[in-house]
Parts: sequence; structure tokens; C-alpha cells
Amino acid sequence: MLGDFTYSNPTRLYFGQNALDNLRRELEPRGKTVLLVYGGGSIKRNGIYDQVVDIVSACGKQIVEDPGVMPNPTTDKLTQGCRLARESGADLILAVGGGSVCDYAKAVSVSAWCGENPWEKYFLRKEPVDNRILPVGCVLTMVGTGSEMNGGAVISNPETKRKIGRFFEDDAFPRFSILNPVFTYTVPKYQMVAGIYDIMSHILEQYFSGTDDNTSDYVMEGLLRSLIHSSQVALREPENYEARSNIMWIATWALNSLLSKGKATDWMVHMLGQSVGAHTDATHGMTLSAVTLPYYRFLLPYGLEKFKRFAVNVWQVSPHGKSDRAIALEGLARMEEYMHRLGLVMDLQTLGVTEDMLKSIAEGTFRRSGGYHPPEKAEILAILKESMHGR
Amino acid sequence: MLGDFTYSNPTRLYFGQNALDNLRRELEPRGKTVLLVYGGGSIKRNGIYDQVVDIVSACGKQIVEDPGVMPNPTTDKLTQGCRLARESGADLILAVGGGSVCDYAKAVSVSAWCGENPWEKYFLRKEPVDNRILPVGCVLTMVGTGSEMNGGAVISNPETKRKIGRFFEDDAFPRFSILNPVFTYTVPKYQMVAGIYDIMSHILEQYFSGTDDNTSDYVMEGLLRSLIHSSQVALREPENYEARSNIMWIATWALNSLLSKGKATDWMVHMLGQSVGAHTDATHGMTLSAVTLPYYRFLLPYGLEKFKRFAVNVWQVSPHGKSDRAIALEGLARMEEYMHRLGLVMDLQTLGVTEDMLKSIAEGTFRRSGGYHPPEKAEILAILKESMHGR
Repeated sequence: MLGDFTYSNPTRLYFGQNALDNLRRELEPRGKTVLLVYGGGSIKRNGIYDQVVDIVSACGKQIVEDPGVMPNPTTDKLTQGCRLARESGADLILAVGGGSVCDYAKAVSVSAWCGENPWEKYFLRKEPVDNRILPVGCVLTMVGTGSEMNGGAVISNPETKRKIGRFFEDDAFPRFSILNPVFTYTVPKYQMVAGIYDIMSHILEQYFSGTDDNTSDYVMEGLLRSLIHSSQVALREPENYEARSNIMWIATWALNSLLSKGKATDWMVHMLGQSVGAHTDATHGMTLSAVTLPYYRFLLPYGLEKFKRFAVNVWQVSPHGKSDRAIALEGLARMEEYMHRLGLVMDLQTLGVTEDMLKSIAEGTFRRSGGYHPPEKAEILAILKESMHGR
Repeated sequence: MLGDFTYSNPTRLYFGQNALDNLRRELEPRGKTVLLVYGGGSIKRNGIYDQVVDIVSACGKQIVEDPGVMPNPTTDKLTQGCRLARESGADLILAVGGGSVCDYAKAVSVSAWCGENPWEKYFLRKEPVDNRILPVGCVLTMVGTGSEMNGGAVISNPETKRKIGRFFEDDAFPRFSILNPVFTYTVPKYQMVAGIYDIMSHILEQYFSGTDDNTSDYVMEGLLRSLIHSSQVALREPENYEARSNIMWIATWALNSLLSKGKATDWMVHMLGQSVGAHTDATHGMTLSAVTLPYYRFLLPYGLEKFKRFAVNVWQVSPHGKSDRAIALEGLARMEEYMHRLGLVMDLQTLGVTEDMLKSIAEGTFRRSGGYHPPEKAEILAILKESMHGR
């Protein structure tokens, strides 16, 4: 806990089986026009769309629909959503979906009244937001990104093959988020485990950095142990409320800015995964799982103490009579077993990456400097090559 | 994670060695009159008073002083503070001190414009606040209560020997809190360890309840391990910034409402300790340490699984070849050793309690129903008797 920081999080969370009952009280004090943002239509099949529309209509609001948000929301979609938000005079953006839908809603929220090209101003140049921000509310139906309680948004530009995340200030956080674990029951297994791994990666990106004694590291060990336990229950019993609710809660706290306070963070797994995503449109969580172990084996000598602590405190590796390196490697081996049990994609080939794409993916990987050893360009390429085929 | 809940916390935290630099930006948008609340004057000796007054004056604000807040703020002091806040037309209450000062500031904040007797309306009858609430900011100089990021306030009525806590809604949370770990260096050792034990007790009160698998329990184990480690460093080296900053951060998160979300809580140690405090005016944390072990030994058979988990996950008790009860008792024994090492008061006699007071203390102990076995009146008396002499 060595760095100075400011912590504040204005999002109000409604959590539980009856959480949607609170939508009415959040809508009532707001203006008349609600921009309803959602994805490919699964919310129409599982009935969540009807539940939400009934409440919004009963509040006397006018609904303007913005469907079709894709898993990796694009600059073109953003442009279209901004136009719709302006022309409809939207007073509130209501996102019903997973992280991509929430991310997109926040991107529209800060961009609709931008006046310039928001991709260039807010994602490439990362300028502060100086225009009107439309309030956002979320009804979460998929778990992983933590987008429901932060100011983050990730947007992809398919032309330039760049996928860029940006964390906006407090004003762009969702004003409220509605988290009903039951809404996540119908998420297909592939998406569920990808979301679970996204959560785990968020925690690990913050854990594997810093050499000080920081309370956050202890909290993260607790969150990881809870996630490892609950994810395996959810895999066996997708409708286990206790497991699904724990996973949902961990996801929120993994990336709502608490854990990173006062400590360094790495984020290289996300930088690698995002570049893979920009080149393949693969599911975000799987782009992370495919590159994780090659990256962490590369990183291990530089952060040996932390990898050892990870093995003992998270994976219950017995340290007795073993070298630090052996303990650390045993931790990663247990993590690898767990990842296989979950059914995660552990190689880039399966995600559609071919050898001839690797150089461009490496080029598109932003280098972050917070970790134990920020990789050079050549090292990034080596990690990606190592990630091609799994083990 | 079985219960539905709402989570929201509007307090903005400024943390670190330069945290006070942020006071100016928080004062500027507010009105002219600042009610400066503090305690017995230690902030004048250590220079914090001068630093704060310089900033408030430089912002062109008018300072009205309300010093002399006692460790257990009384109903009489509250009445006087409310009058001062009204008559001075205070626009902001700035609390500079520890938990008692912050608690008192929040009590004045909701009570100044109450129009009725606030002790009766807000503490005894616990009615919702329906009058103007004055905004509160805190500059923390002592660590323990978590008052800097919640709506809690504890007030004592010496006439009726009742010490009652109340958690107010979002509007009564501090708007901002300034947390500089260096400000806690000069706290006397007795107060420091009492504060540390208050933190530990806040976590344990939430941990020892519920039989579900709840992420909060994992997070609490992490917080406890970090606290146990950092408190022992701080005991050896009171000016170890890393240790003092971890302790400060744990204190905030132990009681800012995160940990209790979705789970049952107990709070009987606080109910026992508060009644002891109302009868003796003893330091809050020591009233908790004195009753803790007799209460937990009483509770152990009813929550055996959790006490066993506590022993293994928090105190690293090896479970091999031992009965559940033996494991659980070994955990409490390690906790007892730790408490002795810290120098906590472990008996009521030292706090000025005499045998003839016990019946009245038991009478004044509120019974909470969330724990593994809410004690009957006779059991409360037995626990207090057991707490008289320590072991």
C-alpha cells in the first residue's frame, strides 16, 4: 500500500433474485426517452427482454431500441449508436446484456455528444471527456467483465485491427446496475467459463505486480479461492444459485477499481488477448486463457516470490522441501489443471490464429510497464508463438 | 451469498501521504461556514490542527470550532453541537480525529435540524431521517471504527447508561474522507492496539455467522491475515508506513458495508462491549477484546464448522489427525496468544468493571439474532462473569 490514490465509486448495485424490482425506482426520476441497448437477441428468448420492457413501459417511458451489439463492439456500431442517441433525445441508456453491451452503452454515453470522432478523441488520444454524458443503467445477464461497476469500455476498430480499452471517470460509471444471478443461468457453457476466466484474469493482472506487502494481495487470494471453488460448482450445476451469485459478486469486485488501489498492476495478458481479439473476433475470455500460461511461465523468474505465494496461498501447494521455483511451477501446474477442467481454450490455433498473423498481433499488443518484466517486442512474439498449440 | 441487497457507498476517499492536499478541492464548492469538530486537542500537539486550519482559511472559509469530543460522545455533547451547528449556520462539518469524532460529526449532521430530541428519534426509535442533513468531511487521525466510510454513529447516554449505534442512509455518509497513514503515527500504543482490535472485531462479527458458501468469508480471511501480519509489524515499528497504511485500509473496508452484503452477521461482541463502555467509559476496542474469547468459546459448539475454517484459513492450524473441536479450539488459542502479544486488555476488571455492575451491563446488552446462537439473558451474564478475570 505504497502509492497515494483516490477511491470513489458512484454505482448503486441491486443484487439478488428480486433485483429487477428496483428498476422502476431508478427510472422514475429520469427523463422520458430510454435507449434500450442489447445484443444478439438472447434476452428475447429467455424472457428478460419482456420483463424489462414491461417495467420501462409501465413507468410511462418511451423506448428507442438499439439492438445488435456484437461481442466485440465496433467503431461503426458506436457511430450508429451515437447518432441514434442524439436523434432520439435519449435521457438514459439502459444496457441489458453482458460486458460488451455495458461497455458499448458507456462508450455511447460519453461519445454521443462528443462533436468529434470519439474513437480518435477518447480511445486513441485518451482525452478527458468535456461534453454532456448520458446516464447509463445496466441489467446484467452475463458475468465477467465487471463493466457493471466501473467506467471501462473496450471498442474495436476492425479496419485498423485495434481493440482499445479506456477507463472513464466517475461520471461515466453506470448510475445503477441490476445483478440477478438467475439471469445468468441460460448463458451457454462456453460463454460462462470464458466469463469466469475473464474474472480470474482481472484478479491475476492486479496480483502479479508489486513487491510490497499490500492488503489487496490478501483480498485477491480470498477472491481467487472463492472463484475457484464456485466456478467448479457452477460447472457441475449451472443453476446453483449460491455458486452463480458468488461468481457474479466476485466479477464486480475484481474490476471496480478497489483491488488496484495503492499498488502496481500488470495487464499484459489483457493486452495480448485484446490484440488476438482484434485479429480474430474470438471470445474475450478465451483469448486470455490461451495466452496466460506461456506469459506467466515467461514472467515467473522475475516475480518468483509472488508466484510462490500464489502457489501456496491460492492453490494450497505444500512448500516443504521444495525450491522456490518448484513451488511456483507447481502452482501454475495446478492452475493449468483447473483451466482444463473448466474447458477453457488453451491455444491460439483453436481461436483461428494462424502463424502468419502472429507478427501483426504482436505489433498490435500494447506494452504495459507495471508488471515484473514488461516484455520486449521479440518476447511478445515468442509468447504468442508458445501460445499457438498449447501443451 | 443468499440474501438480496443493495450496495452503494458515496464516500470519496483520498488516501496516502499527500492526501490532505485534496481538502481544498472538497472545500471550494461548499458554503462559507465550516464547523471544525475535534477531540481532546492531540491534533494541536501533533500539528494536524494547524495544517487543516491553514487550508480551510486559505479557501476563505469561516471556521466555527467545536472541540472536546470525548471518546464516547454523549447526548449532552450532541445537544450542544447541534445548537452550535444551527446558530453558526454551518455549511459543512469537518471532523478531524478518530472514530468518535467522525461518529459525533455524523450524529450532529443528521440531528442539528431534527426539531425533536434526536437521541429519542434517531437512536432509540431509529426513525428515518426526514430533516436537512449537513454534509460531513473527515480527516482521520486514528484508525479502527471505519466511521470514515459509512453512515454509522454511536452515542452514549450516561444517565440511562445506554450506548447505542445507528447506521444512517447514504445521505449521512461522509462526502469525503482524507486518510493519511502518517497522521496515525503519534497515536499512543494503547489506542493503536485498541483500534486494531476494533478492526478485527468488525471482521469477526461478520465472519462468525451464516452457513452458506459466501465470497465475503474468503475476503474476510484475507483481510484478517493481512491485519494480523501488519499489526505485528506496526507494534514493533509504529512508523512503518506500509504496515500503518495497510491497517488504515483494512479498517475502512472492514465496516463500509461491503463485507456484510448477502450474509447474516452477529455483532454480539459489540453489543457486550458497548454495554461495558456505557458503564465504564472504557476504550471501545478494549471492551471488545475483554469479552471476545469467553463469547467465542461459548459460541464455538454452535458454529463449529466456521470456527474450524477460521483456525485453518486464518491461523494456519494444521487439521491433520485432530477432531473438529480440537482444530477450532487451537484457532482460538492462537488468537489468544496474538491478542496477548498485541497487549490488549483481556479482562473486564482492568477496565473498571466490578461484580456488582454485571447485572446492569447484562441488562444493557442488546440481543442480536444473526449469530450461530443468540445468547439468552442468563448466558450473557455468564459470558460477562467469565470475562471478569481473563485466564
